[in-house]
Amino acid sequence: MQNWLLPEYIQDMLPDEAWHVDLIRAQVIDLLRKNGYQLVAPPLLEYAESLLIDDSRDMDLRTFKLVDQLSGRTLALRADITPQVARIDAHLLNRQGIARLCYAGSVLHTMPAGLNRTRELLQIGAELYGHSGLESDLEIQQLMLQALALIGVQDVHLDLGHVAVFRALVKHAQLDSDLEGGLFAALQSKDVTTLQGLVAGLDAESRSAFMTLPTLYGRCNEVLERARKLLPELPEITSALADLQTVANKLQVSSIGIDLADLRGYHYHSGMVFAAYHAGSHDAIALGGRYDDLGKSFGRARAATGFSMDLRQLYRLLPAQTAHLAIRAPYSDDVGLSAEIANLRAMGEVVVVNLPGSEEYSGELQYDRDLVLRDGVWQVVAI
Amino acid sequence: MQNWLLPEYIQDMLPDEAWHVDLIRAQVIDLLRKNGYQLVAPPLLEYAESLLIDDSRDMDLRTFKLVDQLSGRTLALRADITPQVARIDAHLLNRQGIARLCYAGSVLHTMPAGLNRTRELLQIGAELYGHSGLESDLEIQQLMLQALALIGVQDVHLDLGHVAVFRALVKHAQLDSDLEGGLFAALQSKDVTTLQGLVAGLDAESRSAFMTLPTLYGRCNEVLERARKLLPELPEITSALADLQTVANKLQVSSIGIDLADLRGYHYHSGMVFAAYHAGSHDAIALGGRYDDLGKSFGRARAATGFSMDLRQLYRLLPAQTAHLAIRAPYSDDVGLSAEIANLRAMGEVVVVNLPGSEEYSGELQYDRDLVLRDGVWQVVAI
Repeated sequence: MQNWLLPEYIQDMLPDEAWHVDLIRAQVIDLLRKNGYQLVAPPLLEYAESLLIDDSRDMDLRTFKLVDQLSGRTLALRADITPQVARIDAHLLNRQGIARLCYAGSVLHTMPAGLNRTRELLQIGAELYGHSGLESDLEIQQLMLQALALIGVQDVHLDLGHVAVFRALVKHAQLDSDLEGGLFAALQSKDVTTLQGLVAGLDAESRSAFMTLPTLYGRCNEVLERARKLLPELPEITSALADLQTVANKLQVSSIGIDLADLRGYHYHSGMVFAAYHAGSHDAIALGGRYDDLGKSFGRARAATGFSMDLRQLYRLLPAQTAHLAIRAPYSDDVGLSAEIANLRAMGEVVVVNLPGSEEYSGELQYDRDLVLRDGVWQVVAI
Repeated sequence: MQNWLLPEYIQDMLPDEAWHVDLIRAQVIDLLRKNGYQLVAPPLLEYAESLLIDDSRDMDLRTFKLVDQLSGRTLALRADITPQVARIDAHLLNRQGIARLCYAGSVLHTMPAGLNRTRELLQIGAELYGHSGLESDLEIQQLMLQALALIGVQDVHLDLGHVAVFRALVKHAQLDSDLEGGLFAALQSKDVTTLQGLVAGLDAESRSAFMTLPTLYGRCNEVLERARKLLPELPEITSALADLQTVANKLQVSSIGIDLADLRGYHYHSGMVFAAYHAGSHDAIALGGRYDDLGKSFGRARAATGFSMDLRQLYRLLPAQTAHLAIRAPYSDDVGLSAEIANLRAMGEVVVVNLPGSEEYSGELQYDRDLVLRDGVWQVVAI
């Protein structure tokens, strides 16, 4: 029995990766803390109905379920942390004013989310509750870009979108939810043939608008100009396009685009959405958006916007770190030696004590210096 | 539907707890790193047969199982990280010499492990592979005590035990595994009446030895003296008692005891075991021991010793930390303001930007200072 084999798309993090991921986790959490975001740590397991609140069939399929022996009820392993943080904002903190929260923790998926992805993600993110203005969208987007820069991800491209555009078109054309779902799926997969069939029965204006959406992506100003020309002049659309223009002008990022057919997270997003891309990854490397209605499931809808990213995915985009090698110390009861070891560790050095009777094997050495007694003084010398 | 309710014995960590637990996690990981322990992060989910390797019925019952949709096989949520680290040592690192590994991660139990405990523990620990001498037992015990002191747990009591004593008695009396299991359970619960019944058929020496075990706990020297007098002179026992004496003499801890009936983890432990206690907790607050045989399940038995503890349990023993309050900054495009905010954050301060249109509510303030422009200079002033 090869019981050391792991399930598919499940991996260990061995020392190099584990340290590096732990480091970037600490860097991002520190950034968020200094920006006023308070850390929360919701549980890995909850009742299934608490986690699956947005009627997303996709999320339901992606979520592991199991039985709670204490209650007989169905539990789920979280596949996303954002709904949990919305629950904490709505029910536990119960603030009237702005609440800034952040988190970092594992989430599990029944199926890998994309090419080369794992089923166990290390999700980190920030959420801002209680503010509906563009300033909070901007704060969250800027934090996401700062976090990516801080951990060393370079040449990031940012795409902005706005789910109000699609929502306004659906409302204007008075579509039923079946047709809405069909159009949503066709747009998500940019399946123009299916889209054409679905809009065939609509009035000319709506038909043209839905067929235009998949083409409304690319350079910011150009796309917004085309959108203003080609989409119907509905107040929600006008306002969404104006908001996108404002935010795009304010963000300082070298590469920025618009994608009005990006409806990712449509089930819970309600306003501006965004996703960061990198040449090294097929999938978005960080994403987020406004989701003012999510708290409603917990009895208290609050203005909300946030971002999240998977540190295990980001790690793969970073250059390898040169390992900092250790100092080897002999095993001895010498008080001076113990003091010097403590001193070196306090200065940040790794000091490995060479236990008696332990043989050394070339190729396994983790150190490049020795702590030796010379002229009555303990000194670090190169091996 | 009150979908914001969590399952029993499952809790969120809200900001005060989440920060403090994150801080002590970082402190312990840093201590272990500086002592040469390399971080690994095994997955939350594995095939059940990879996690349940020690034939412990208790562990089996405590482990959540679910079905892998990709393979149709049974997966388990880890209830302990040590067997995973043993797998990594045996199969992935594959070192000939000493390997020092550490980890920090969540484990889940179907039932709470003790009074006031959660079903989601944050297990942190260190393992030392490839050294069978007492020096490695001592290194691990000292690290555990240092870790407890570092995070602020005071007045710790340490109990030492040795599973070789019970094993030698079982072997000497030639007991079958049913009787061994019965004696084990009776000793664990210190159930003397049941014990008496079970040993009734044994020879006088064995009977007396098994009945003596539950009394062999208390002050170190005293218990070891009684054990040498009352237990049969088997070589394994003589050597175990001598090892306990050596280690007890070397450890610098104000309160130390011996408990020869402590068989916790007997299923995988093979030598000296130890547990730390604190007046604030009914259960042990940290524990560990030697488990030279665990790697055998993965095809490669290696000398091994390690310790682990639950940071969520330890957090409850620590005095509350005074929250460090933030600085509030106005919302503005002023370049000098942005520079001063960045500067304050670089110095470790939390600076919260006051978004336009956000009302403030007394009782929700997270800051005690304001960043204001006075005489053309941005300055921090008390509110």
